[in-house]
Amino acid sequence: MSSADSKAQKRQKFEKVFEVIREELLTHFNGEGMPKEAAEWYRQNLDYNVPGGKLNRGISVVDSVEILKGRALTDDEYLKAAILGWCIELLQAFFLVSDDIMDSSVTRRGQPCWFRNEKVGLIAINDAFMLEAAIYWLIKKHFRSEPYYIDIVELFHETTYQTEMGQLIDLITAPEDHVDLSKFSLQKHRLIVIYKTAYYSFYLPVALAMHMSGIPLASSTTPNPYTLAQSILIPLGEYFQIQDDWLDFSGTPEQIGKIGTDIVDNKCSWCINTALAVASEKQRKVLDENYGRKDAEAEKRVKAVFVEVGVKEKFEAYEEDAYKRIIGLIETIPVDGLGTDGAVKLKREVFKSFLDKIYKRQK
Amino acid sequence: MSSADSKAQKRQKFEKVFEVIREELLTHFNGEGMPKEAAEWYRQNLDYNVPGGKLNRGISVVDSVEILKGRALTDDEYLKAAILGWCIELLQAFFLVSDDIMDSSVTRRGQPCWFRNEKVGLIAINDAFMLEAAIYWLIKKHFRSEPYYIDIVELFHETTYQTEMGQLIDLITAPEDHVDLSKFSLQKHRLIVIYKTAYYSFYLPVALAMHMSGIPLASSTTPNPYTLAQSILIPLGEYFQIQDDWLDFSGTPEQIGKIGTDIVDNKCSWCINTALAVASEKQRKVLDENYGRKDAEAEKRVKAVFVEVGVKEKFEAYEEDAYKRIIGLIETIPVDGLGTDGAVKLKREVFKSFLDKIYKRQK
Repeated sequence: MSSADSKAQKRQKFEKVFEVIREELLTHFNGEGMPKEAAEWYRQNLDYNVPGGKLNRGISVVDSVEILKGRALTDDEYLKAAILGWCIELLQAFFLVSDDIMDSSVTRRGQPCWFRNEKVGLIAINDAFMLEAAIYWLIKKHFRSEPYYIDIVELFHETTYQTEMGQLIDLITAPEDHVDLSKFSLQKHRLIVIYKTAYYSFYLPVALAMHMSGIPLASSTTPNPYTLAQSILIPLGEYFQIQDDWLDFSGTPEQIGKIGTDIVDNKCSWCINTALAVASEKQRKVLDENYGRKDAEAEKRVKAVFVEVGVKEKFEAYEEDAYKRIIGLIETIPVDGLGTDGAVKLKREVFKSFLDKIYKRQK
Repeated sequence: MSSADSKAQKRQKFEKVFEVIREELLTHFNGEGMPKEAAEWYRQNLDYNVPGGKLNRGISVVDSVEILKGRALTDDEYLKAAILGWCIELLQAFFLVSDDIMDSSVTRRGQPCWFRNEKVGLIAINDAFMLEAAIYWLIKKHFRSEPYYIDIVELFHETTYQTEMGQLIDLITAPEDHVDLSKFSLQKHRLIVIYKTAYYSFYLPVALAMHMSGIPLASSTTPNPYTLAQSILIPLGEYFQIQDDWLDFSGTPEQIGKIGTDIVDNKCSWCINTALAVASEKQRKVLDENYGRKDAEAEKRVKAVFVEVGVKEKFEAYEEDAYKRIIGLIETIPVDGLGTDGAVKLKREVFKSFLDKIYKRQK
């Protein structure tokens, strides 16, 4: 079987679990005596917004539990890991539905943004809330008798708050309708990326898998396995987002599946911040006058400056450095894992598998 | 000291605690390395949206703990009860900031709605999220070592979800821009009121006070004290909202502090549902043609039908009946309270104090 086949099968198996949780949520909703048209609405909210993405975050919970346990999962273990994975996808759906409203986006995952549907509009705000609330309802239903129940509830709370902090900095640093490059810096970019993306996309799936595998939060191991995991996954998430920013500028639509709009949308991207850090006075003037304008000629002028200052070479150097740095971090984990003998140990392989999927990706 | 003085003092003492939690939230926010302008934004979000209301919900947590414990609170007990009270106010702020966006509202508590401020706009959506996230951060900080910690976390989750369900039914039943009275009914009204208002405004404060007072959720008492409290507080909340709907129609601006707009806003109010239930064919036609129109003459025609069908008399009859019914429910609690001897017992007085504040209120 090819690796593409096995990836597709893995995805299909994971997608099956979405049917389960959707029906659980709707059965409960109907049990509360809600009107039929409200249940139909909720079903559409779930179907439209939760399952259509790449599912990397959700599936990585299952993958990580398998690596940590070092064996295939039982049906019940698989279901539990997949439910936690879907809880991340629900969290992401909550963010994306509302981000699209805040950013006045038009499409998402190849379809109109949820709030762009004629009947929906700003009801999408409450729909986003319900996607978030579903997370805690599902966790309570499936995990309330587990010793790590409160830990995963707190983890979702904390991660949600961190992501919202990142979104706040992003929104006030790079409003679409008001360009002020003096607010930008590589340091600000780093803060936004870590808070807005890295915690929920990288640390959250692994930390959930660690809890499910029985690695205690109050571990006596030094360093604490959760602290160590975070110290690797946050740089990894930063690297991932910098690639994303780079691909938005350099990738073709055929390659990345969308048209990059960071420049015209005044995004606080790695590329503009890298250019700003080295631009001459003349180049800076071009950036100030052309960045964030809804104008193809202005965009071209910005892109020309990016080429001039060598953003490509700087990205390649960054990528090599990031890769080596993250390998170095992974190697701080002992070869036979971190943790007590006999118990589930934190393993290098969890992080390597993430890094391998990301390194030099072209889409 | 007059009762008005003591009420003002009580409010002031409660308001002092807001300063404490705001500084705790901001200290933590700054500790995460957030930029100064983001901290300033968060401070304004908190100050603008959380403390300016009537604070009835928040203060009722403190009042209820005092009644349940049957004595004045220590400083630490007061602080804890007030923090839970402020968590309800944060929850309400989260709902109101976002409801105002969804409803295109103009003013709230005598000032422009938060999203109407020029610099804010739809960033208000993320600001609302942060008000919600603050709840769980505060609860963790102050209650993590209490035996009822997970109970109050779950209570906030459940109540939030219920409120969002109520908001969904309301939004699809009574969209401001599309009048269809065939979707209305007293039964639908009841469901909206219970889910959208009663759980978070009435059950939540008392249940929090019960947890803080040491009444166990898994009580061996029959009926369970939480179930019993809910069976009284949900009808009480329903009664409160029906008064609200009635006052929106009948109250003068001097009396209720605002101009009632339920008719022009196509609200699924008790008054329209009561009128619909008894309207003749001719009256129904007037309602269909004039309800929810931004037109003072249309509003007058609706009001005339309300008078014709006797909404006033029906409200007075409803109020008497509700009062007697709720008194009857309160009296299902034994005179010396419900619970184990020696432990804190659920007392009639908690519910009576709510009912007394509400009965025949004129604003």
